[in-house]
Amino acid sequence: MLENTILLDVLNHKEVPRPPVWLMRQAGRILPEYREVRGSLSGFKALVQNPELASLVTVQPVDRLGVDAAILFSDILVIPECMGLDYELIEKKGPVFPKTIKSESDIDNLLSGAEAAEKLDYVFQAIEQTNARLEKRVPLIGFSGAPWTLMCYMIEGSGSKTFSKAKAMLYRQPQLAHKLLDKLSTTIAAYLKLKIKAGVHVVQIFDSWAGVLNKELYKEFCIPYLLKILKELNDEVPTILFAKGAYFSLSDLNYCGSTALGIDWTLSMQHVRQAIGDHKVLQGNLDPCTLYGSPETIASNVQKLVGEAGRNHIVNLGHGVYPDTPLENVISFVKTVQAIQY
Amino acid sequence: MLENTILLDVLNHKEVPRPPVWLMRQAGRILPEYREVRGSLSGFKALVQNPELASLVTVQPVDRLGVDAAILFSDILVIPECMGLDYELIEKKGPVFPKTIKSESDIDNLLSGAEAAEKLDYVFQAIEQTNARLEKRVPLIGFSGAPWTLMCYMIEGSGSKTFSKAKAMLYRQPQLAHKLLDKLSTTIAAYLKLKIKAGVHVVQIFDSWAGVLNKELYKEFCIPYLLKILKELNDEVPTILFAKGAYFSLSDLNYCGSTALGIDWTLSMQHVRQAIGDHKVLQGNLDPCTLYGSPETIASNVQKLVGEAGRNHIVNLGHGVYPDTPLENVISFVKTVQAIQY
Repeated sequence: MLENTILLDVLNHKEVPRPPVWLMRQAGRILPEYREVRGSLSGFKALVQNPELASLVTVQPVDRLGVDAAILFSDILVIPECMGLDYELIEKKGPVFPKTIKSESDIDNLLSGAEAAEKLDYVFQAIEQTNARLEKRVPLIGFSGAPWTLMCYMIEGSGSKTFSKAKAMLYRQPQLAHKLLDKLSTTIAAYLKLKIKAGVHVVQIFDSWAGVLNKELYKEFCIPYLLKILKELNDEVPTILFAKGAYFSLSDLNYCGSTALGIDWTLSMQHVRQAIGDHKVLQGNLDPCTLYGSPETIASNVQKLVGEAGRNHIVNLGHGVYPDTPLENVISFVKTVQAIQY
Repeated sequence: MLENTILLDVLNHKEVPRPPVWLMRQAGRILPEYREVRGSLSGFKALVQNPELASLVTVQPVDRLGVDAAILFSDILVIPECMGLDYELIEKKGPVFPKTIKSESDIDNLLSGAEAAEKLDYVFQAIEQTNARLEKRVPLIGFSGAPWTLMCYMIEGSGSKTFSKAKAMLYRQPQLAHKLLDKLSTTIAAYLKLKIKAGVHVVQIFDSWAGVLNKELYKEFCIPYLLKILKELNDEVPTILFAKGAYFSLSDLNYCGSTALGIDWTLSMQHVRQAIGDHKVLQGNLDPCTLYGSPETIASNVQKLVGEAGRNHIVNLGHGVYPDTPLENVISFVKTVQAIQY
């Protein structure tokens, strides 16, 4: 059906001539055409909530960079919002929630499951419009934040270096935390199912703040909910689970049921392969700062990465591409990967 | 000489009846008497640069919490400052450097070694005044930032989630990075020697931003300079090396020559002992958020930690104590550790 199936082939454990490549945050400020669209709007959320423009910027990196997949332009915080917790995105500060979760009744008052997820109609429209624009060139990835990461923002009310308020709930009121995480999981599962129904070919779950926990906390407050979500999705489409900073939970993440694991740049792929074997599909994990280097630096780091990761590998950065990365270096990175012959 | 030698005893591999305990950032906002001193001043730097008040707040946690060591109230950024790079501390934003390192001539223009370190007379005076106030009750720890962490601020100009500008230099201009790191090392070594001469009994090196690197980058840009500094100090006093987030470099850090290694809360002490053996003194690593829990939660986590770390262990948090931690919980933590009988 699709012209370029290399990403889906790897996820389906088919033979491929080279690793597929895409970049987290590829639809974003690295592209002048993105900055133009974004500059014409009052804010980031106006772009997220506009299916036409969201689909436009989703396709831009496919046109410009020639990556092997598109990822729907959106935001992880649409989930808290559809559950009833509105947020604003403030320039240079990030997300701010005027109201946060402080008590059990705050949790009880949240919408959840399909009832909440169905409110995100603009996302499902954006998926349909993106697939129309893509004209079956590459697959479309849809994503969601993981329960813990979303809980972080809902308790903390904004970004944080430590997320100490959210973590405090794990020690002080673990039952309340479980109640919130469960409600989030139900909503995330419903949301991802609706995304699949609308046409995404792959889903990725981002646990961006996994790294503020440790193996024990992650096992108690995160793994059960990731298992639940992935079980609900029932392998309808391939899944990628990316828990940034969760080096301590690699073996637990490996058994959550995702098709692939995203790996951040602090882990060596050699180490990951030793820990979990050759079969699992791995995604990542070039240090995003490598792309500040020369084409030679980029090429040598890509070669090393591909050598260490072996087959069953999707090349990506180990984090979202940084906004000030020179565009020609991003293009050089994509071309380098696409010139590989296994 | 000192009344309470339990910290020094552990660092000297002598038998102790229980682990010693102190907290990173114990001289700080958790104490009402600190907030009172701080509130009377125009800014944080006014406190750092005032030997009388710096020594006053250094001794406060010894009086109030009964910890087994004092740590000199100061700031890691005194080093860039004495090298010629002034900074400001802006409330709720953190450090800001009006001028940053952009070129080789910026590096050439920095003072270094004893010539720079000798400018920090207010620190050495604060050490003498602290020891006078302590009346030989407990040892005094002096600290410095590690070269990489200081370079982060000197390039970036402020705090950052990614320190992508500083990291960019590692990929783009590695020789320049080495030149800066070498100059920093010479200065840090001179500074720590002057601190020892002024009377600190232990020194700790904080590599707070180690975690944005990976094993390879850490080995190239950090380990050689830590080795150099520790060699210069020549075991005059015991040393503690704390590279936060550098789980990937545990075995390299183990061979840098420090007496002890600080461990952050994301690593399990069981894992660390398996990786580096029972002999090395380890410091840490309770999740600071544990102290938001009940006395029972704190006690059970301390018991678990002490069981896993075994002997040759200094109990501490795996990060600085968070400012909003209830004081009674900090006291409960210290008492719990001091009630342990090996």
